[in-house]
Amino acid sequence: MKPIGSTLWAIAEGYIPPSGTEGSRELESHETACLLNAGDADAHVRITIFFRDREPVGPYRVTVAARRTLHLRFNDLRDPAPVPRNTDYASVIESDVPIVVQHTRLDSRQAALALLTTMAYPSA
Amino acid sequence: MKPIGSTLWAIAEGYIPPSGTEGSRELESHETACLLNAGDADAHVRITIFFRDREPVGPYRVTVAARRTLHLRFNDLRDPAPVPRNTDYASVIESDVPIVVQHTRLDSRQAALALLTTMAYPSA
Amino acid sequence: MKPIGSTLWAIAEGYIPPSGTEGSRELESHETACLLNAGDADAHVRITIFFRDREPVGPYRVTVAARRTLHLRFNDLRDPAPVPRNTDYASVIESDVPIVVQHTRLDSRQAALALLTTMAYPSA
Amino acid sequence: MKPIGSTLWAIAEGYIPPSGTEGSRELESHETACLLNAGDADAHVRITIFFRDREPVGPYRVTVAARRTLHLRFNDLRDPAPVPRNTDYASVIESDVPIVVQHTRLDSRQAALALLTTMAYPSA
Repeated sequence: MKPIGSTLWAIAEGYIPPSGTEGSRELESHETACLLNAGDADAHVRITIFFRDREPVGPYRVTVAARRTLHLRFNDLRDPAPVPRNTDYASVIESDVPIVVQHTRLDSRQAALALLTTMAYPSA
Repeated sequence: MKPIGSTLWAIAEGYIPPSGTEGSRELESHETACLLNAGDADAHVRITIFFRDREPVGPYRVTVAARRTLHLRFNDLRDPAPVPRNTDYASVIESDVPIVVQHTRLDSRQAALALLTTMAYPSA
Repeated sequence: MKPIGSTLWAIAEGYIPPSGTEGSRELESHETACLLNAGDADAHVRITIFFRDREPVGPYRVTVAARRTLHLRFNDLRDPAPVPRNTDYASVIESDVPIVVQHTRLDSRQAALALLTTMAYPSA
Repeated sequence: MKPIGSTLWAIAEGYIPPSGTEGSRELESHETACLLNAGDADAHVRITIFFRDREPVGPYRVTVAARRTLHLRFNDLRDPAPVPRNTDYASVIESDVPIVVQHTRLDSRQAALALLTTMAYPSA
């Protein structure tokens, strides 16, 4: 399949709730960047995290293999530093081949979960 | 009406919750690709499903008649294989005429339902 | 302010839940097209509704005055015909001047409300 | 990092719920424009608020420093006038350098919170 997407994406909203349903990876509060690499070459991806009051952190590096999707939880990023909870952030995602990026959050702080999603912003 | 849309779309987020409100097609957890064919020719649509750790599956084939909309549940896809529940996936949607694609999920795992939606990503 | 937006938009997802919180216009289940006319000329808008199994209905006609926003509930459309509840539909929105269109639903069928939103798809 | 985004954005949907979870800034109902300035020059931003039945109000002025994100609550805008609650509005966001704008609402009027988000509409 021919590549689809862009090599530069931004997500202006970022926030990992401080708590939520415990004891279940599936239902704990989390924030995700869903990356789709529909092409036939691996995608080498660099993520930079922006904050309100300090310099950006990154790059975080992940690889999305050819013809694969990776639903990456910001909660799981560790290197160079974990993404703090209960803190406003934003992210820029760069790839060496076209990918598609979608942003999703599951918030289970209260009795029933809430969801949000949007396509990330693709740079022209 | 003149055609509106694109012939190549991607949805990077895909996930069918493993459970939810039972006994109601309307309120069971589901994931939908809403397809709009506003033009005067039928749209022959091919859907390919991408996974984290194995080769893509597809194409799934559906037709959206001229001047019609089809709200297609991924839960209902059967041929060549059902879409697994509780599994991260992504999708690419190809059509022979321009269509518009919007992604929606209803999650009724917990006491109150949650909803998300976004336009799919249209390839230029 | 200079005009911003497009003159042709599509929303592939449409669904008015059959019930919800009663006795409150604010909290009853509803589906909305938010129209913004930031320009200095009135926008004459035509909406066409598409269905799964029958011909489109429309046009519904509304005017969005210059420098105004109209959050139009599909529930409130009456002429040429009400939009049926509990039925999948889609919509195309045409304007004689550029506008911006955003799609929102509030679903209050269950104990806690759910929300979704996305920008509509702008034709190039 | 090179700038990413647009200098003119619109959000057609705007609504601050009249109430919600009290006593917590984090969980009170709010409406947010998330602004990301990934570039190396400060962004001087002007926000104009549009209403259904009266002239626009603004500009509200904020600065997003270079390489920073600002998650701006419409609830917090004061000058030239607070944004009324329980009122439909829309917004246009102008910047002197490219930024990315995402719209999010948290609604805690009922027992469990609801969330929505979408990228704002970028003018070409």
